Amino acid sequence: MKTRRSDRLIDMTNYLMERPHTLISLTFFADRYESAKSSISEDLAIVKRTFKNRGIGILETIPGAAGGARFIPSIDEGEAREFISDMVVEMSAKTRLLPGGYVYLSDLLGRPDVLRQVGRVIARQYIDKQIDAVMTVATKGVPIAQSVSEYLNVPFVIVRRDSKITEGATVSVNYVSGSSERIEKMELSKRSLKQGSHVLVVDDFMKGGGTVNGMKSMIEEFDSELVGITVFAEGSFAGQRMVEDYTSLLRVNQINSEDKTIQVDPGNYLEKVFDN
Amino acid sequence: MKTRRSDRLIDMTNYLMERPHTLISLTFFADRYESAKSSISEDLAIVKRTFKNRGIGILETIPGAAGGARFIPSIDEGEAREFISDMVVEMSAKTRLLPGGYVYLSDLLGRPDVLRQVGRVIARQYIDKQIDAVMTVATKGVPIAQSVSEYLNVPFVIVRRDSKITEGATVSVNYVSGSSERIEKMELSKRSLKQGSHVLVVDDFMKGGGTVNGMKSMIEEFDSELVGITVFAEGSFAGQRMVEDYTSLLRVNQINSEDKTIQVDPGNYLEKVFDN
Repeated sequence: MKTRRSDRLIDMTNYLMERPHTLISLTFFADRYESAKSSISEDLAIVKRTFKNRGIGILETIPGAAGGARFIPSIDEGEAREFISDMVVEMSAKTRLLPGGYVYLSDLLGRPDVLRQVGRVIARQYIDKQIDAVMTVATKGVPIAQSVSEYLNVPFVIVRRDSKITEGATVSVNYVSGSSERIEKMELSKRSLKQGSHVLVVDDFMKGGGTVNGMKSMIEEFDSELVGITVFAEGSFAGQRMVEDYTSLLRVNQINSEDKTIQVDPGNYLEKVFDN
Repeated sequence: MKTRRSDRLIDMTNYLMERPHTLISLTFFADRYESAKSSISEDLAIVKRTFKNRGIGILETIPGAAGGARFIPSIDEGEAREFISDMVVEMSAKTRLLPGGYVYLSDLLGRPDVLRQVGRVIARQYIDKQIDAVMTVATKGVPIAQSVSEYLNVPFVIVRRDSKITEGATVSVNYVSGSSERIEKMELSKRSLKQGSHVLVVDDFMKGGGTVNGMKSMIEEFDSELVGITVFAEGSFAGQRMVEDYTSLLRVNQINSEDKTIQVDPGNYLEKVFDN
């Protein structure tokens, strides 16, 4: 069916949003809408302008009859700042305090509205980088990895502390837990990551950095390359962290179990991403 | 800034897609675009028509000055059938066969394109039901729960076989593993689910149904109600299954370790959802 511009713009927006980082050809859209390529080009120019003005992301357009468009999700500075401020407030709630000075996070990391923004914010940071896979460790890192993977449109892989019969052959590495200084083991299914991949590591919480450091070793075992490390929250840590170069959206500075207070600040994300 | 219709349609599509099942008022859109409510109403009618024609979902519009619109993601029968056929082919690959007759699934459940469609397909099934939370068991059910949770726009909760210090107080239940007939334990953080919730259970794979049955007991312990059970794949099971009423997208009928063949068919999803 031949379509009107308004219908095309709505369907195109949906189509592009569901397939980030994927080049969609002019020919495809021209066939889908039974419209001339020149009309599709005009449509894409309008979508591009609106995506930019509204901070939705970048629509890369490749000109010419063999061209097309690729949607790169992003988030503008204002929206990223607002999200991180909201999270600072949420995280500072006394009710999150658990025995032993731990912070309850599972509700936030199960909320689709929070996860969407976490995904957009982290994907924004790596907008110019080649990433082939997102890696995390089970279980609490998984929702973050999945959200980032959606916005980057690359698969995510889950490293496990316990091997499962349903993973097939695995590669295992030992690592030193930063907080407890114990030697632990983590495993990743051999078939889950190709050699030579560019890997982004994400996790929910980092203290000493032992787990993240374990994932770095794992990436080496797969002859792959670490592109970056971003965690939802970092905690304060007295000793020397095992990982120096990382990004955090939030920083849990002080936990006072007596007063039942948690003091949370924005992490280094905003300065790293927007202050350059 | 006052906007043109084309810009409004693109931004509205994005805005609604990012907030499924949420009522957005005419007033909100009128302010956002500095446009008359009558223009916004016309815009929404266009969006509604295109969403319907393209199988994107339903745009519920509430008429009148106090009205607004709510986007309910869906998928049409053709697209659902195509997705399930694609998965039958993917799942039948010999290379998925693991020792002991297990099937490797982790790659599919780490692919954002697959997870998006899994989420849309399962959400479609419960389009008329009240659901307050999606429940699954760690680790491999998590990506499915998260995708469904996005399209239903409700939180998901993760039941664990091992309790963690970062979950706070938990409720635990014992359950009989259907395959091995052993007694196992699962736990859920007390604060993760409100009493009286309507809960959808999802998982990656079901054999005897023991794990799913455990989640049913867990839901009872939280004085909540089970709305339905949907799994990505069911395996064949010789004995009496512990759960009768469930939906599966795929059915793994036969695994022949000698010939290295897997025989996969569509599950009962299509008949349950579209043949009524």
